[in-house]
Amino acid sequence: MADEMLYYEDFEEGREFISAERTVSAEEIIAFASEFDPQPMHLDEAAGKASILGGLSGSGWHMSSLAMRLFFDTVISKSAGEGGPGIDFMEWRKPLIAGDTIRLNVKVKSRRPLASRPGIGLVTMEHLLTNQKGEKVMRMQAPAMLRMRQAQTVEACR
Amino acid sequence: MADEMLYYEDFEEGREFISAERTVSAEEIIAFASEFDPQPMHLDEAAGKASILGGLSGSGWHMSSLAMRLFFDTVISKSAGEGGPGIDFMEWRKPLIAGDTIRLNVKVKSRRPLASRPGIGLVTMEHLLTNQKGEKVMRMQAPAMLRMRQAQTVEACR
Repeated sequence: MADEMLYYEDFEEGREFISAERTVSAEEIIAFASEFDPQPMHLDEAAGKASILGGLSGSGWHMSSLAMRLFFDTVISKSAGEGGPGIDFMEWRKPLIAGDTIRLNVKVKSRRPLASRPGIGLVTMEHLLTNQKGEKVMRMQAPAMLRMRQAQTVEACR
Repeated sequence: MADEMLYYEDFEEGREFISAERTVSAEEIIAFASEFDPQPMHLDEAAGKASILGGLSGSGWHMSSLAMRLFFDTVISKSAGEGGPGIDFMEWRKPLIAGDTIRLNVKVKSRRPLASRPGIGLVTMEHLLTNQKGEKVMRMQAPAMLRMRQAQTVEACR
């Protein structure tokens, strides 16, 4: 288990992680929207069909939160992560329609040690959410903080 | 009611909107994290205290989703909104600790008509989430699409 843990050093530029698939139901879309983004096209099939989105469609924030869960399951749960300071940019490119099956692809864009926090590095990744038609639903770029394996060793030897 | 509707023309540069306050419970933080971001500091008081966040703290995506709800209640529910294409940037600056009371401040930064969609304009706003100590918890900048009042009139006269 400890051997499989991913540290800063393991996030080489260009490395990719691909999540499992996940199908999103109308019930999930409506539950999220009721709490956080109760616009008609996120709550009601007829309103969604009448909008430019073309159907009952998830809030952009629901897409982003689902992408976080796929990122957690695929990368963060196996990593020496220290959280993230924010998002460089995020694009909601296509609607997430009830019944769609999504998948997350994460690619390492760049990385650098954090001068302010020795033993921690910042890894910038591109997150791409696609649907069952291969359409790009959401794209974002965000940095994450990861502990260095080397730092762990130094600490263990103290 | 129709008189109070906000159109593109009403989003003058510098105009501010301030939300009501909202207190965020430990139960809400744990429920969101269980579904979308099950990292220990978002699920458990002891793990939160042991982390750099200093207590049971909400996921960044929970902060963003709560900010969306405050934005909906304060602006979008009264506006001729046509959705948003994404986020220019987002910064999670301070933890959202269980029991914190937050408030959203939204300020219009710039606006322009959309050449690709006549009668619609893009309004870029800064969103600032603060806590009961006046600390900036989250800051983001995002564009929103708004219908023009003028376009409504032209359509009504056809």
